[in-house]
Amino acid sequence: MLIDGFESSRLDADDRGLAYGDGLFETLALSEGRVLALDRHLERLARGAERLGLAPPPDPVLREEIDSVCRGHTRGVLKIILTRGSGGRGYRWPNVQRERRIVSLYEWPRALDAPPQRGAFLCRHPLSINPAIAGIKHLNRLDQVLASRAWPQGDYVEGLMLDGDGHVIEGTRSNLFLVLGRRLITPCLERAGVAGIVRAAVIERAARLRLEVIVKSVLVEDLLVADELFVTNSIIGVHSIDRLDADRPMIYRAHAVAEELVQLLRHDELIP
Amino acid sequence: MLIDGFESSRLDADDRGLAYGDGLFETLALSEGRVLALDRHLERLARGAERLGLAPPPDPVLREEIDSVCRGHTRGVLKIILTRGSGGRGYRWPNVQRERRIVSLYEWPRALDAPPQRGAFLCRHPLSINPAIAGIKHLNRLDQVLASRAWPQGDYVEGLMLDGDGHVIEGTRSNLFLVLGRRLITPCLERAGVAGIVRAAVIERAARLRLEVIVKSVLVEDLLVADELFVTNSIIGVHSIDRLDADRPMIYRAHAVAEELVQLLRHDELIP
Repeated sequence: MLIDGFESSRLDADDRGLAYGDGLFETLALSEGRVLALDRHLERLARGAERLGLAPPPDPVLREEIDSVCRGHTRGVLKIILTRGSGGRGYRWPNVQRERRIVSLYEWPRALDAPPQRGAFLCRHPLSINPAIAGIKHLNRLDQVLASRAWPQGDYVEGLMLDGDGHVIEGTRSNLFLVLGRRLITPCLERAGVAGIVRAAVIERAARLRLEVIVKSVLVEDLLVADELFVTNSIIGVHSIDRLDADRPMIYRAHAVAEELVQLLRHDELIP
Repeated sequence: MLIDGFESSRLDADDRGLAYGDGLFETLALSEGRVLALDRHLERLARGAERLGLAPPPDPVLREEIDSVCRGHTRGVLKIILTRGSGGRGYRWPNVQRERRIVSLYEWPRALDAPPQRGAFLCRHPLSINPAIAGIKHLNRLDQVLASRAWPQGDYVEGLMLDGDGHVIEGTRSNLFLVLGRRLITPCLERAGVAGIVRAAVIERAARLRLEVIVKSVLVEDLLVADELFVTNSIIGVHSIDRLDADRPMIYRAHAVAEELVQLLRHDELIP
């Protein structure tokens, strides 16, 4: 783990990331010795930083630190945290802010080497609604933590989260797609949710597979009429769901569209 | 600063408070050598811990640490942070969680010794709406940070925050009360906001001053017909507002009810 470029596993306890969740993070796959979709993650980090009034780390510095942390490893989960740094007490930030960056590599999750888990459930804990910070991968993730608390026993890869108005938004750690024929539908993230890198890649490249993408509000009823369901993130890639625990439990037998996307995005080195 | 009882200013960088804002905090006034409303703060910490699935620190241990940090000081701002501790990567929390507590004392804010600031403005950044975590003093405070960003020049003590639906909820770091005759109105916090200790004390003790309290939805229009406006927190106590920057700027000349409450709550050692 590198903190501001120095090998360390401890940081100042007055960091505003801890005090307020005043920062951002990125989670990237290291696969076969390559960090996947690195440019896209660094671009998102820079965009999020701009929205939060943070200076992103200089690109060459951050890339050098990523190289350093990944050196000698072929596989792992790379995490980058950017905070507003040390900042005393009080929400107003200091006149001179010195951002802090933490670059660390975690082991590849063992669960992903086992036979894939394909179940999904509906989380009871709702997502917070706030258009002003929706989409950003910030450090305020208590919703996801609390939603993950009631993880059922069994073969579940993801819990799907609704906002307080009953819109299905995303998984606790992934974005969601519904397949209807050659159409992909993915929830609109204008009011809640994280705009994922793989989600953006699917939206951008779907046309190559003659898939149409529609971004819109999604209700639980919409899930019940989908041919396929899949979730996406940088570590699990594009991951088919085969059943959903809802009031009316659903089975999804089709996975062909998800498979097409897996092939395409793997080929482009965007997912593991 | 004490971290889990040990003098330290650094903590493990894998703390879930940093990673996800997975924790709680309390801010207390040390005034004339006494920590004010300590029991109430510890009770709120325990209630919040229950809602988040955290074990609160054993009461005698925490009190001893508070004593230790405050020893030799007569005035300051005491902060207690409780997190889910170190927890690796991933929202799901470890089977064995070991909470972490951070007890620290900060200098009394100089601004509070200067002539009081009495202005308020309306923040542009909205509060997130989520009934499942409303009221709790958790570590997800990016809304307050971003709202505080556009603090205007001049004599402003507080920015008032609205939720995305236009309800006035609270200040960035305080609760809000409107006075109409012998009635106090304070915004309902069922969907957003922090249920403050001084707010609760005002609600509980208002009847002693023959004040009626109404907790309800509040709109900006309601602020324009109030006789008085005041904000409350554990450090500023009960603090009158004398003007509000809104589309129609407001002047509040009356401060008598706030003054009555100051006297009452000071007498009971609930505010500095």
